[in-house]
Amino acid sequence: MKKEQIHGGDIYRNPGVTDFSVNSNPLGVQKEVLSALKEQLGKIAHYPDIKCEALIREICRFEQVGEEQVLCGNGAAELFFAAAFALKPKHVLLPEPSFAEYERSLRSVDAVIHECVLREEQDFLVTEEILQAITPEMDLLILCNPNNPTGQVVECPLLLKILKRCKEAGVTLLLDECFVDFLDHPDQATMTGFLKEYPNLLIVKAFTKIFCMPGLRLGYALCSDPGLLEEMDRFLQPWNVSVPAQIAGVAAMKNHKEYLEETRMFLKEEREKLRRQMEELGDRVIGSRANYLFFASEKGLYEKALEAGFLIRNCGNYRGLGEGYYRIAVRTKEENERWIAWRRGL
Amino acid sequence: MKKEQIHGGDIYRNPGVTDFSVNSNPLGVQKEVLSALKEQLGKIAHYPDIKCEALIREICRFEQVGEEQVLCGNGAAELFFAAAFALKPKHVLLPEPSFAEYERSLRSVDAVIHECVLREEQDFLVTEEILQAITPEMDLLILCNPNNPTGQVVECPLLLKILKRCKEAGVTLLLDECFVDFLDHPDQATMTGFLKEYPNLLIVKAFTKIFCMPGLRLGYALCSDPGLLEEMDRFLQPWNVSVPAQIAGVAAMKNHKEYLEETRMFLKEEREKLRRQMEELGDRVIGSRANYLFFASEKGLYEKALEAGFLIRNCGNYRGLGEGYYRIAVRTKEENERWIAWRRGL
Repeated sequence: MKKEQIHGGDIYRNPGVTDFSVNSNPLGVQKEVLSALKEQLGKIAHYPDIKCEALIREICRFEQVGEEQVLCGNGAAELFFAAAFALKPKHVLLPEPSFAEYERSLRSVDAVIHECVLREEQDFLVTEEILQAITPEMDLLILCNPNNPTGQVVECPLLLKILKRCKEAGVTLLLDECFVDFLDHPDQATMTGFLKEYPNLLIVKAFTKIFCMPGLRLGYALCSDPGLLEEMDRFLQPWNVSVPAQIAGVAAMKNHKEYLEETRMFLKEEREKLRRQMEELGDRVIGSRANYLFFASEKGLYEKALEAGFLIRNCGNYRGLGEGYYRIAVRTKEENERWIAWRRGL
Repeated sequence: MKKEQIHGGDIYRNPGVTDFSVNSNPLGVQKEVLSALKEQLGKIAHYPDIKCEALIREICRFEQVGEEQVLCGNGAAELFFAAAFALKPKHVLLPEPSFAEYERSLRSVDAVIHECVLREEQDFLVTEEILQAITPEMDLLILCNPNNPTGQVVECPLLLKILKRCKEAGVTLLLDECFVDFLDHPDQATMTGFLKEYPNLLIVKAFTKIFCMPGLRLGYALCSDPGLLEEMDRFLQPWNVSVPAQIAGVAAMKNHKEYLEETRMFLKEEREKLRRQMEELGDRVIGSRANYLFFASEKGLYEKALEAGFLIRNCGNYRGLGEGYYRIAVRTKEENERWIAWRRGL
């Protein structure tokens, strides 16, 4: 059957392009991950470990959580669906613009979505205004922090207020932290330290972006409410996490330290350079604190860029945005320079 | 969180065993699959093709169906869940014993399961009796052909009667053909030729067993009702089929001819040899027309075998079976000989 392509990354219908549309780690796959996969390739002849034991051990070490707080998925996207099936929320508060799969998963359980519009004049920031919208009528609030596509961050003090308000109102907070490790100071933004105190907090993270392995599909949910994780698991097949994903996940986390430090150093420099260069070109760069730049620019830039061999993310189909909004990933130095050189020649 | 292990194949908690509990192709992974994966490993840095274009092309060639009739999944197991979510059946007819994931997926949508007990005195065969049970009250019938764990086959004439009866009664027939290509004559058993005429027929197949890649997770659904496939897709994330699974699937089907012929020749000889040898040992071998042998034997054989280094499938936890029923895969000549030699020494 024909599936609709609503996301970036369609290199299959755009062969040969330089892909700025997917925001994964510009350092590429760790060499330890590639060699672990090569060495252990023969293991595809066996079923995956349904308990993901070795993988969960590494996740626990990395996130400083307990094994009973982890549920692994075939990418974070699968876990958004599992959360929707498990929670069956009737009313959901959803800041927009945000990642389109939240809405797709919610529609699959016929939830009523209450949009919480992030306003351009506030640089699409989540503000204290959201607290009033968290009422007992709501069942679920989904936040992406840093947000995709804006790269805006909700700071910890406000996040904590939101979390408390949710707890009082009986609302689950699904917090997507897939991009948190790209921040200059992830420790100041992640809420993993509050899991124990707030069983209504469900954090979803992925290996996809930070370890640059979107092709392998590996994500995980963190929660201190065992009932919720068990209920999510009811809707998942036992072998949802493949053998290569488990091998790669273990290798990635075992060798994360240097790689993540280098990632953050590289990003800080390249992202800020790109920001300056694009602002000089007249783009309005907004937010953009992770590994991608969100900006307003001339209409038709997507098509022009594609003709020149650059695939960028046209954000026109995000709810709450329109034509003239784009997202590009921070890529390698050479690719970033090519992008800027082309833009200057326009 | 702790997941329960209810299936075979747990080599992770039983390291070093010879695994007879998983019934995948004894010839192992095709060399073309392994080399395609090695060569294209770097592609894990990209998202999978959400349209699975190259893969679906090969599936269509292999199955002689149209592209609009195919939906790919993260293993067949994911598609059973997607079918349950899409059909939301209230009443389901389910012959037992059969694969446990049917029931798990149906429970997740709170379906009422009407067991259709396959009787030992009829060698667990599906008979014409089932026709009376297919009433308009039912929404779904699930059949596994050849059946797992018995390896019994419903012959085409009866299958066609069942399919017709289902159509008249407004019942969807979910036909699991994951083991059909292991039969001596798959063409005489598969119902893919009836898809067009029967939009109420939903066939699920997998690469898992026949191409020996359970670690990669790759299955597909075939149906001529586009509405049903679209509805199933609503409950799936866009990137459910990983890059390695798509690469392997293409390579496997491009190089299937010799491999499958060799598989069937090998199986015919080894399976029948094992059957004779096990019957000489006093086992009652039942059905067993695919790549595994289902048999009744002494209680406690599972534990004894495990102690001796053989992991077999204890079928005691299948609904409709009890202690003393087992399933073993046909493995390599050397492994089969070791199994028989050990049994003879008991």
